[in-house]
Amino acid sequence: MALVSPSEIARPFLDEVREAVAELPPIRLVGLLASDRPDAASYSNYAARGCAKVGITYEERKVPSAQLSRAIFEANTDPEVHGILVYYPVFGGARDRSLQNEVDAEKDVEGLHGFWTQRLYHDVRFADRAKTKKAILPCTPLGVVKALAALGVYHLERKPREQLEGVTVTVFNRSEVVGRPLAALLAHDGAVVHSFDIDGVVRYEREREEPGTITRAEALRESQVVVSAVPDPSFELIRADELHPEAVCVNVAYVPNFADDVEATAKHLLNRVGPITVAMLLRNTLRLYRNFAS
Amino acid sequence: MALVSPSEIARPFLDEVREAVAELPPIRLVGLLASDRPDAASYSNYAARGCAKVGITYEERKVPSAQLSRAIFEANTDPEVHGILVYYPVFGGARDRSLQNEVDAEKDVEGLHGFWTQRLYHDVRFADRAKTKKAILPCTPLGVVKALAALGVYHLERKPREQLEGVTVTVFNRSEVVGRPLAALLAHDGAVVHSFDIDGVVRYEREREEPGTITRAEALRESQVVVSAVPDPSFELIRADELHPEAVCVNVAYVPNFADDVEATAKHLLNRVGPITVAMLLRNTLRLYRNFAS
Repeated sequence: MALVSPSEIARPFLDEVREAVAELPPIRLVGLLASDRPDAASYSNYAARGCAKVGITYEERKVPSAQLSRAIFEANTDPEVHGILVYYPVFGGARDRSLQNEVDAEKDVEGLHGFWTQRLYHDVRFADRAKTKKAILPCTPLGVVKALAALGVYHLERKPREQLEGVTVTVFNRSEVVGRPLAALLAHDGAVVHSFDIDGVVRYEREREEPGTITRAEALRESQVVVSAVPDPSFELIRADELHPEAVCVNVAYVPNFADDVEATAKHLLNRVGPITVAMLLRNTLRLYRNFAS
Repeated sequence: MALVSPSEIARPFLDEVREAVAELPPIRLVGLLASDRPDAASYSNYAARGCAKVGITYEERKVPSAQLSRAIFEANTDPEVHGILVYYPVFGGARDRSLQNEVDAEKDVEGLHGFWTQRLYHDVRFADRAKTKKAILPCTPLGVVKALAALGVYHLERKPREQLEGVTVTVFNRSEVVGRPLAALLAHDGAVVHSFDIDGVVRYEREREEPGTITRAEALRESQVVVSAVPDPSFELIRADELHPEAVCVNVAYVPNFADDVEATAKHLLNRVGPITVAMLLRNTLRLYRNFAS
């Protein structure tokens, strides 16, 4: 039974957020929906249900894409709004990346603002110099980290920054939203990470990010952890015979990235992370409220 | 004699910065050069020369692209560094846009950080609610605005936000760095702006940004101002016979976007803006120092 339930991993985080929220004045999260994509509407529904579970007020605002920047501006300047979530892609590419940075860092529940990614990539774990406000991390990479901790990959008895020493990870995907931040987070805790995408392979170790030379076959054979987030259905599925015998496998994409035989042979297979991502979103919302609004 | 000298337009701004800098402790601008592109090195040289002219200390730091994020982090956290300039493109696209937002807004002399573009797109002219700190605008669009003011396009006798009423502008280019912010700035002052790029035409009026229906020929015929910033040498050059008889023309690209006959017939032709852009960079450096470091 290698298959892992994402809801079970998410549950303790939801419980923790619910208990904290119960003690606080109303916390309000606004979701800005500016595209017709079904996955955007679906993520908004998940966010709404997650918020309902923990007692955070969720408000979905449908806006024409041309008005999105304005809607962000209004939410930024509204003291009754504590968190802002935008469902990307809207325009795609550099323009979306600009919009991500128009959301005030103090309301950016996704942790995608440069203020937060600067901290992430340089392993600064607080928002302030006095170290009173813990930093926000992007929901999906953070969710994968929490899942790996729940699955016993982290050596929690060791000091921070050493808990993944001796662990090799392969990540398929190097986007700015999932693969790159995840590789950096794992490397900061001591892992060696091989990151593959259509442009080739990059090796992460501590703060180093360098072109890699390893092949997919070699990387998979030596990796105790394999995370895949490739949306392309033509991706060559990862087969059981390619994996390390003790591999923990996490599928982040909406389509399967692992072959059917992996479930039976991997140490653990987490084949979707959505519920964990939503739990991290709620946790980030609470953290921003505590850091900046309360 | 339609041809205008960009150095002459830049001069009063340089004088103003020099006089102010002379009264202040040393101001330090760091330029991060992480690509081998000759235009990057050349812009760094222009910045160095501009800084020398006005008394700002300039330091060029050559860094491997993989270390750029780290170099930004170090400059962000160094209290002796007051301004940071990164020469793009480095990786291109979304990753460069991420890096632009890793520079602290308080040191972002280019005005490309989301903190500044939010203000630009929503016509908020100060960095703070008390309106004590004037906002930073991106250098090239700001330089074009200052050039148009010097060339008599702005009705400076009118109130702010009305000074371009009755003026129609055509802009070729809608990048996040030049064309979009420029169109927004002009529209905030009352102009109607037709913005063309390979994806079509967009119409800007006040805060509205909507798909346009006008053709290039119609837009040019009614525009008293034409700004072009198309790097592609296959761009169809703008000819004199397409222009409004009183057209003020500004070429922002490194390659000519106007045909040879425009110089003789346009009211004014400014065929490069580099020196004005550099003057705005120095002006922004001074403004950030006054707003946040002094």
